[in-house]
Order: sequence, then C-alpha cells, then structure tokens
Amino acid sequence: MRILGIDPGSVVTGWGVVHHGEGSALHVAHGVLRPERGGAMPDRLAFLHAGLVEVIREHVPEIAVVERVFVAANPRSALVLGQARGVALAALGAAGVVVEEVAAREVKQALVGSGAASKQQIQRMVMELLSLEEKPPADAADALAAAICAAHRNKLAALGVKRRSGSGRRRAGSWRVRRAR
Amino acid sequence: MRILGIDPGSVVTGWGVVHHGEGSALHVAHGVLRPERGGAMPDRLAFLHAGLVEVIREHVPEIAVVERVFVAANPRSALVLGQARGVALAALGAAGVVVEEVAAREVKQALVGSGAASKQQIQRMVMELLSLEEKPPADAADALAAAICAAHRNKLAALGVKRRSGSGRRRAGSWRVRRAR
Repeated sequence: MRILGIDPGSVVTGWGVVHHGEGSALHVAHGVLRPERGGAMPDRLAFLHAGLVEVIREHVPEIAVVERVFVAANPRSALVLGQARGVALAALGAAGVVVEEVAAREVKQALVGSGAASKQQIQRMVMELLSLEEKPPADAADALAAAICAAHRNKLAALGVKRRSGSGRRRAGSWRVRRAR
Repeated sequence: MRILGIDPGSVVTGWGVVHHGEGSALHVAHGVLRPERGGAMPDRLAFLHAGLVEVIREHVPEIAVVERVFVAANPRSALVLGQARGVALAALGAAGVVVEEVAAREVKQALVGSGAASKQQIQRMVMELLSLEEKPPADAADALAAAICAAHRNKLAALGVKRRSGSGRRRAGSWRVRRAR
C-alpha cells in the first residue's frame, strides 16, 4: 500500500510517499512544491494543485494523510492555510484517494515518542526510519512523518490494535489491544 | 469584457457572469454548485473545482471577483472557508484569469447604497439591474452582485475616477474624480 503524506502551505507544500507492506515503511519519494515567491495567490495555488495532481498521477497512492489542524493561530492564517489545504484535498478527492487526518502531536509521538518533538528530531527520525542518506527538507520530512504515522496506525488497525482514546497524559505512542469480550 | 463573480463555500458556491461593455452590466449566466450533502470534504472540494473549471471554460471570463474576507468569524470557519476559496482561486489561476477582491461592504454600497444591505435587498437589486425575470438563488445573487460591483469599479477606473480612500462614514457609493494638479 502506498501512502502519500502532504504538509500543505501556500509558501511551501511538502509531500512524501512511503510504501507500507509487511514490516516497516519503505521510502518511495518525497519533495517540496514551492510556488514563485511574490506571485499572486491564484497562481501559487494553481501551481500547487498542478504539482500535486502530478505527484498523485506518478505515485498512485491508496491513502493520503494530511495534518489535522487545531487552529490555535489567528483566523487570517487559518484562512491562508485553508486555501492551500483545500487545493490539496480537491486534488486528492478528484483522484479518488482516501484522505486520513493525523494530529501533529500523534505524528510526533509515533515517531519520536514525544508530542513535543522538534522539527530537527522529526527530520532525523524520518532519515533513520526510512534509511535516507540525505536529510529531507523540513516540509517533506513532516509529510513523510505523517505517512509513516499513518502506515503505523493502519498496520496496528489491521492487527486489531486500537489507539487508546481519551486525551491528556497518555504515554508516548501507547496503544491498547482490543480484546474480545 | 466578461466578469465572473464567485461566492465560495464548501456547502454552496455561487457564481455569476456579467458582460461589461458600454453602459451597464448585462447578465450572461449564473448558477450554484452544491456538492452532495454529507460527502467527504475532499470529494466536495473536487466537485467544486471541477464545476468551476467547467464554468471558466464555458464563459471565458477576463476578470474574476471574489469577496475579500475580513475574518471576524472563528479560526475553524476561516479554515473551512479558506479551503473552498483556495479551490476557486486555483481554478482561476490555472486558467490565467485575473482575480480581484471586493469587500462585501463595497458590493452592498455599490448596489444598494448601504453597506448594511440585507441578502434580500441584494437579490432584488441584482434582479433589477440585470433585468432578470426570476430571483437568482442567494449565493448566485451575491456572486452576480460582486461581478456588477467590479464592472462598476473598472468602468470608473477607465474614466479616471478613483474610489475615495480612507475608511469610516463615507457616503454610500461615493467616488472622487482624480484631478490633474
């Protein structure tokens, strides 16, 4: 199964594809889409849309993962982020790709074991887990991390393992085995 | 010149095309794009994108107008609105259509003479100005109103008339002639 992670943004959109078969996730490809700086927003969004359509066409993912947004930021930045996110979702929807959401915190916990992991820690862990020789750009690393997290989640789900519900101080990456009653 | 007004939303997106030649704006077409209720967001956004691509292909507008967003609402609704707006902007950018923004207040002032006009007043005024026999759906009326406002603005700009700058209690639809010094 191919999983495409996307980290949408109108300045930079990161993407990464992992193959999730038996065992661990394997790296397929990653990259960043960077519209011309200072370009008009419609042109930048059109660039992102075309770029993602191309990525989807080339890698034919079965699942895509986009970070869930807990909008702590102000409404203005939520609007701008929403615009890039909408373009990504539309490209995925048109290709019939199933879209999952993951919380940034969940990604960090799954990869580094702490919901407060830094960007650098994520980059290093992605390099290690996927045996990359070069450090991927930060936005692509975030996208790969989301894809790895989704692979992990789907593998556990297939094994009948369910994420422990409830918020708060749960241990990093803790999962609970769903038992037959 | 053909002007396409768009009122983006993930539940309903209204659109309207007016022709702006000499004299007043003429009605060309209008409609609403309504994705399947309860569908997944990627599918709904893909539907909107495909619908707008089709509208742009059919009517070949030179200018498009989208309402400027003053995000008074909460970040969550700003994100959702941004998603639909991003899809519209990407479709316009890909087709090379110049995108202008208008403030809702400016549209209302231009059409009804008051920045606090109701939806019903806008609908009635759009019907009257474009000599429509039937009342257009509210979202399409808003889109047509934006297009009419842009036509008005562009006509005045062509005549060397500039909108009075500054905020506050300016008279409804007041414009100032730019004089040679």
